[in-house]
Amino acid sequence: MTDQPLLPCIILDRPQMAENIGAVARVMGNFGLTELRLVAPRDGWPQERAWALSSGAEWPLNDAKVYDTLADAVADLQVVYATTARNREVHLPVITPRACAADAMKISREGLKTGLLFGAERMGLETNDLSNAHYIVTIPVDPKFQSLNLAQAVNIVAYEWRLQVMDTPDEAFTRNMDPPADMKFVTGLYEHLEAELDTSGFFFPLEKRPSVVRNLRAVFNRAGLTEQEVRTWRGVVTALTKGRGRVLARLAKEQGEKE
Amino acid sequence: MTDQPLLPCIILDRPQMAENIGAVARVMGNFGLTELRLVAPRDGWPQERAWALSSGAEWPLNDAKVYDTLADAVADLQVVYATTARNREVHLPVITPRACAADAMKISREGLKTGLLFGAERMGLETNDLSNAHYIVTIPVDPKFQSLNLAQAVNIVAYEWRLQVMDTPDEAFTRNMDPPADMKFVTGLYEHLEAELDTSGFFFPLEKRPSVVRNLRAVFNRAGLTEQEVRTWRGVVTALTKGRGRVLARLAKEQGEKE
Repeated sequence: MTDQPLLPCIILDRPQMAENIGAVARVMGNFGLTELRLVAPRDGWPQERAWALSSGAEWPLNDAKVYDTLADAVADLQVVYATTARNREVHLPVITPRACAADAMKISREGLKTGLLFGAERMGLETNDLSNAHYIVTIPVDPKFQSLNLAQAVNIVAYEWRLQVMDTPDEAFTRNMDPPADMKFVTGLYEHLEAELDTSGFFFPLEKRPSVVRNLRAVFNRAGLTEQEVRTWRGVVTALTKGRGRVLARLAKEQGEKE
Repeated sequence: MTDQPLLPCIILDRPQMAENIGAVARVMGNFGLTELRLVAPRDGWPQERAWALSSGAEWPLNDAKVYDTLADAVADLQVVYATTARNREVHLPVITPRACAADAMKISREGLKTGLLFGAERMGLETNDLSNAHYIVTIPVDPKFQSLNLAQAVNIVAYEWRLQVMDTPDEAFTRNMDPPADMKFVTGLYEHLEAELDTSGFFFPLEKRPSVVRNLRAVFNRAGLTEQEVRTWRGVVTALTKGRGRVLARLAKEQGEKE
């Protein structure tokens, strides 16, 4: 990335449980966010249990800033995204976490400072708090069970932010292995296998051979064998036929002893 | 939705803490998943603390099935997505949670049964466990801090699944208010305001009036006023000018008394 965007800060409005603040810090660590702002935490600050629950993501906690009011906490921000259930009393646009992250990235790339705001456990954000926000972000939970944990809400929005930061399509899929071998190399295996199957009388009735071969090859083609895997499978075919050879030899020997 | 897809089940391999199982159930409730499978939970099953941490999402816990081995837990599934850090020893495709959800939806719509597999806290999934999986799903965490909480991992994948289920573009943005008033109605406000500003001598020097008017109108246009808001703002203009009238009258009166 050429122009590093300003990172959004995470603002927790009147958080109640230190455990949740710690869990939020851990999520921030997971998704590359660093700046934590706490508005009037119920049990004061600092709280040891927050550090205990952060699993080592201590830097957002160490640097957390505490504010008396939400207005103070957002004073230096240009755009604030409030994650909350839809609130019909406040006429702000309601957007998804994905749209939020895309917009925050656009704003951040302009060198402007954004904040991701989350309400207290249980209560969430109050209608009046939303005067400090520009967008309502609503996580698409099942209407039948909407009670979202605070750290889980931060998790979703921070995850969407992280996807914006990465924004490299090739990270969407990793082959995680060598590329497939070329077809000439793979066909060597196929012919080896099919010759052994011919020898064993596997292709019966013979008029079905072409379609059976097609199906056998399709399995390997779908798997996309690497050169190493082709070598391994040639070994498999050899081992199986040698084994059969040994079995046949032993059977022949036993037969001879009996006669 | 016309054809309801089969829901993926959530499989927790050797989960350690009942609290995390409860938190997973809560996340399942949030995102409309119901079927929970537990492979050899460390502390046995059922565990009261799981219910306590589920915030009322008890149905996945009540119906949870327990298995001795992972192989048993996936026996009736067609496709298994294993969420874990990239594992270079296992040559399975590595995909994102988003690609996982899209693929699982496609598979589910075929009437096939999928599973979303998660490893134990701390240890995650072992290389051998991945023989029971078709895809590795990797959550794009910051390489500098990869320690993701179990329920948070489920949260991300379940959230992406939920987006697939919703798949209704209009849910991406909700205006959350009445539509904007038509321009004739809004222009009434503009002309009202500008007439009052003319009276007050606000437009000085007069040659700048057109650009100042343009900028004033742009602010309201960006906001997209509803009819109700236009009425409110006409009231604001009236209130402000009446107040000024009262002030002017009082000033005039005081002036008269002095003379």
